[in-house]
Amino acid sequence: MVNIGLIGAGRIARVHANTIAGNPDARIVAIADPYQPAAKEIAERFGASVFSDAQDLFALDNLDAVVICSPTPQHPQHVVAAAQAGLPALCEKPVALSYEAAVKLENDLNGLNPKVMLGFNRRFDPSFARIKKLVEAGEIGQVEQVTITSRDPEPPSAEYVASSGGIFKDMTIHDFDMARFFLGDIVEVFTYGQNFDPSIKAANDFDAAMILLRNAAGVVATIINSRHCAPGYDQRLEVFGADGVLNADNVRATTVQVAKKEFSASKEPYLNFFLERYTQAYTNELNTFLTAISKGETPTPGISDGIKALQIAEAAEESAKTGKSIKLS
Amino acid sequence: MVNIGLIGAGRIARVHANTIAGNPDARIVAIADPYQPAAKEIAERFGASVFSDAQDLFALDNLDAVVICSPTPQHPQHVVAAAQAGLPALCEKPVALSYEAAVKLENDLNGLNPKVMLGFNRRFDPSFARIKKLVEAGEIGQVEQVTITSRDPEPPSAEYVASSGGIFKDMTIHDFDMARFFLGDIVEVFTYGQNFDPSIKAANDFDAAMILLRNAAGVVATIINSRHCAPGYDQRLEVFGADGVLNADNVRATTVQVAKKEFSASKEPYLNFFLERYTQAYTNELNTFLTAISKGETPTPGISDGIKALQIAEAAEESAKTGKSIKLS
Amino acid sequence: MVNIGLIGAGRIARVHANTIAGNPDARIVAIADPYQPAAKEIAERFGASVFSDAQDLFALDNLDAVVICSPTPQHPQHVVAAAQAGLPALCEKPVALSYEAAVKLENDLNGLNPKVMLGFNRRFDPSFARIKKLVEAGEIGQVEQVTITSRDPEPPSAEYVASSGGIFKDMTIHDFDMARFFLGDIVEVFTYGQNFDPSIKAANDFDAAMILLRNAAGVVATIINSRHCAPGYDQRLEVFGADGVLNADNVRATTVQVAKKEFSASKEPYLNFFLERYTQAYTNELNTFLTAISKGETPTPGISDGIKALQIAEAAEESAKTGKSIKLS
Amino acid sequence: MVNIGLIGAGRIARVHANTIAGNPDARIVAIADPYQPAAKEIAERFGASVFSDAQDLFALDNLDAVVICSPTPQHPQHVVAAAQAGLPALCEKPVALSYEAAVKLENDLNGLNPKVMLGFNRRFDPSFARIKKLVEAGEIGQVEQVTITSRDPEPPSAEYVASSGGIFKDMTIHDFDMARFFLGDIVEVFTYGQNFDPSIKAANDFDAAMILLRNAAGVVATIINSRHCAPGYDQRLEVFGADGVLNADNVRATTVQVAKKEFSASKEPYLNFFLERYTQAYTNELNTFLTAISKGETPTPGISDGIKALQIAEAAEESAKTGKSIKLS
Repeated sequence: MVNIGLIGAGRIARVHANTIAGNPDARIVAIADPYQPAAKEIAERFGASVFSDAQDLFALDNLDAVVICSPTPQHPQHVVAAAQAGLPALCEKPVALSYEAAVKLENDLNGLNPKVMLGFNRRFDPSFARIKKLVEAGEIGQVEQVTITSRDPEPPSAEYVASSGGIFKDMTIHDFDMARFFLGDIVEVFTYGQNFDPSIKAANDFDAAMILLRNAAGVVATIINSRHCAPGYDQRLEVFGADGVLNADNVRATTVQVAKKEFSASKEPYLNFFLERYTQAYTNELNTFLTAISKGETPTPGISDGIKALQIAEAAEESAKTGKSIKLS
Repeated sequence: MVNIGLIGAGRIARVHANTIAGNPDARIVAIADPYQPAAKEIAERFGASVFSDAQDLFALDNLDAVVICSPTPQHPQHVVAAAQAGLPALCEKPVALSYEAAVKLENDLNGLNPKVMLGFNRRFDPSFARIKKLVEAGEIGQVEQVTITSRDPEPPSAEYVASSGGIFKDMTIHDFDMARFFLGDIVEVFTYGQNFDPSIKAANDFDAAMILLRNAAGVVATIINSRHCAPGYDQRLEVFGADGVLNADNVRATTVQVAKKEFSASKEPYLNFFLERYTQAYTNELNTFLTAISKGETPTPGISDGIKALQIAEAAEESAKTGKSIKLS
Repeated sequence: MVNIGLIGAGRIARVHANTIAGNPDARIVAIADPYQPAAKEIAERFGASVFSDAQDLFALDNLDAVVICSPTPQHPQHVVAAAQAGLPALCEKPVALSYEAAVKLENDLNGLNPKVMLGFNRRFDPSFARIKKLVEAGEIGQVEQVTITSRDPEPPSAEYVASSGGIFKDMTIHDFDMARFFLGDIVEVFTYGQNFDPSIKAANDFDAAMILLRNAAGVVATIINSRHCAPGYDQRLEVFGADGVLNADNVRATTVQVAKKEFSASKEPYLNFFLERYTQAYTNELNTFLTAISKGETPTPGISDGIKALQIAEAAEESAKTGKSIKLS
Repeated sequence: MVNIGLIGAGRIARVHANTIAGNPDARIVAIADPYQPAAKEIAERFGASVFSDAQDLFALDNLDAVVICSPTPQHPQHVVAAAQAGLPALCEKPVALSYEAAVKLENDLNGLNPKVMLGFNRRFDPSFARIKKLVEAGEIGQVEQVTITSRDPEPPSAEYVASSGGIFKDMTIHDFDMARFFLGDIVEVFTYGQNFDPSIKAANDFDAAMILLRNAAGVVATIINSRHCAPGYDQRLEVFGADGVLNADNVRATTVQVAKKEFSASKEPYLNFFLERYTQAYTNELNTFLTAISKGETPTPGISDGIKALQIAEAAEESAKTGKSIKLS
């Protein structure tokens, strides 16, 4: 039985709590959140103890691991606290607010022998994970081109945009990790940022972008981003190789098709947003974390994957603003 | 070069004329139709001679084959005339108005050594023919169940219904031949006729039917018929075997898919009716006929296939009217 | 909070236990199963009390409802016991081993004011339920034809077949309920039973069947059954109406498509069997039951739906054995 | 009746000849090709006169239009000759070997009042044309992003590559025109050229590329190119707009799907190459040309479209070689 401490009691914390509830080998024993009503609601359901200050949770001696769902600015301090307490940690993405802060975190962890898994949930999506497995099995030979389509159903609020850190760190960060999932280290990035939404432009941000990335071997990925998409949360992947092509289509609530006088084979819109679309990915991610720590292994993706995604995000932004192709060191 | 005489100058005759025009090894040299304007229009385009009476065409000495597109009641006499003239013939379906008339035709042809191919065009549809070929190659093992969905886009006129011979001989006849294409000889038929359209009921006919057929080996086919279908001409086939399943979907004019707020992957309606849906089938059918006679072979399907389809049609009608399962002798 | 007693601790009981675990408004408080290790395993996880004899469970005074997952022969006695205890019950299908036993159960319940929901889980499948809702909303007008394709991935063991009650009561029973879901009461049935599997034939049972059913209004359903299907558990539905057509396709584990030199758009096999294929249906079914009893409503489908499905099953078997179309009284 | 002169008797010339044969309002009256056997073969079939030198054909007085299928280096002189003879011309793409040569041609045509249509056949593909029409009808609102996937089934021979002018002018030229079809004038281009095929790299050419283009309004298109694709000729289009998304999928020979133990819904490979894939596009293109000249209209796309596509091609090549985003004047 793995005893888990939950840092944060927000939306994602509840997703992880449900996964733990369904896993007969794990249980939540403590929850910390400054907002006590949220923490208490989860705690009561699972019979866990409640804290306001995360430091009190880290001081417990009956924990086997922590899941960090605190606000992004606190990620570094909670990751360090977990490492100091000798606890494996699953930390939500992004690992820090900036590439600089992430590099500082990496330095702070020096000598602490941390076991940190970063919550890039899309790597655990059943379809994307299947494609990865097929690629590794040599099903399509050498990978040559990757197309990542990633569009949100609707733009976030002006407040959210203002504090988001910009589209590349907030939204495309997942796609940069997907690109790295298939291409490994990226050496060059080029971006056309787009502005169709005046309120997002007013916030000095882009609401869409088309991005090219390449690795040292010349494999290229294109990322197609938009902050809106009429039929829902558009999340597709195509991996093209020497001997074949692999695609993952969007996910819908049912398999129903309608045919009428004017059209046929009409399907439902895509699942609307990440909590529905990636439900199974969150479950698989947490279970992967639990399995790894049960076996004493260091789970992946880790801190360095978070740092590299942030580095690409900052380069993509520089490219969009300067019109130049940016080389990564 | 195969010199062809065309009996009839109607809609199907023009389809066959276009196929011959695109075949560099064949040409139309004569056309017969009592309605001279139609015959002349085709003749002028291809430089062919024109006749009012088909007997004059059969008397020509420069013909290698005939294509019979006359009204159904005249099929038997034109097939006999072709056989008497020693000419291979492609005859449109059905071979005769009734099972009885078809059997009489078969007797009349005795000793004439006829080379007659019957125009069951669906056997030459690229998708259905591919399925047949895959079945014969053993791709799905022993065939066990066949599902034929066949719905017209819109009901025919009351006049047409009145003289059609009923849904089973007029429409399902194609599906009976499809069932025979995969099951061979049918030994038993059961039918529920359906009446949703009052004007067709008034003509003492059915506007829909669901039919089961089986062969001596116990393989069963179901035919699903309707005289209307909102999204167009619904023509599908599923063949289920011991080791797999083969399906042919409907055909659309383009591959375009539309996604909007309320739906996604919405395709065009099906092609509207048989001339569009089976264009390629008509072309392949005629070219199969031409190839066979060039090689001196007897093309299939033949007269006996037409007779057996008519026999099933009459049994299906008897089943629908008596509520009994009908055994074929 | 709804306190639930679980009768039986087998495979389906565990499915229901997981659904209850994920529902914050319900909990399992007692489990009864003669096989104690299975009962204890579930009980420990949820802190429930354990009984060997179901009668002891029914005697508890802290229950709000029971879920009956005992072997089919015991369904009637457990349904009656629940009614006598004034407890709403969700009972797995079939309600009894025969039409006769089911009618007897109905009589035994007279005056007991039972609240029994029968576990015809497919009515709660997201895709089939969506089609039902669209039909009721008038999306495709008057329903005219229904096609139900239902094939198991692999034949059951000889032992299972021997005690199954035959394909129609064991397997097609679900499809008969689906037919009733869209057609209401059935007035006539015709069946061709099929034998391709010698071991099933040796057990005097069919391993495949094609069935036609009609209601008093002349709407016809066809059911296509097989005890095997190479690509997996084949569960499809087509509802054809005056103004359109609705289809539910099979379900796959991912949306991945593979394209190589010889083929394209190749998808995964279908989910392999009912626990995977109908996971969400079982969840929705149990939650529907919980919602109904919370509101004091009588949930559906009920006992009479189980009786009518059994009546059709016996008529289908009679038709397959006599070659006659059977009218239901 | 439109009397047509055909310049060239190669592969594309035969495609156009077949279209003309199927059009009752047009006929081929003359063919010119230095290689006389090819010219004679077509001429005999259609009863046309044959010339070795195109100048003799232009001197005829019974022509209404010409179709120019000569080798690319001769396109400019034949276009000028047609204009001097007052004949409308359909000229195969590319209009000239280089942007410079194309601009020179435009100057040479000054004052000749030419009616020249350029054979960018993909604009006439039924699916792409349907998308264009739906976009113009406002179906998806303002266009924001376009994704063009264009992969050849197999790399051309080394000889072909050596004289092709490079991937951008030889292959991507069609995709540049597609981008212009939806974005209008392009103002900036960025390209990552790719080298996986050593023999193409040896010819100092790329065998794959991923390209971004944008117009003055900030609409961006991405082009995904490869000289090989295992499942066939990969030709897809996605147009994303404010209110929806339009897609055109690949084309296959049949609608057959195979399901077996390991996979399901497996379709045929894509049609193998442009003559099969774009058969209907070539037909529609020529008929559009014939309709325009029958009405005395100037058909599009024209010379200037060819020039602009060449300008983009040269910029894309410069970008791939310099690593810089190139602005078009």
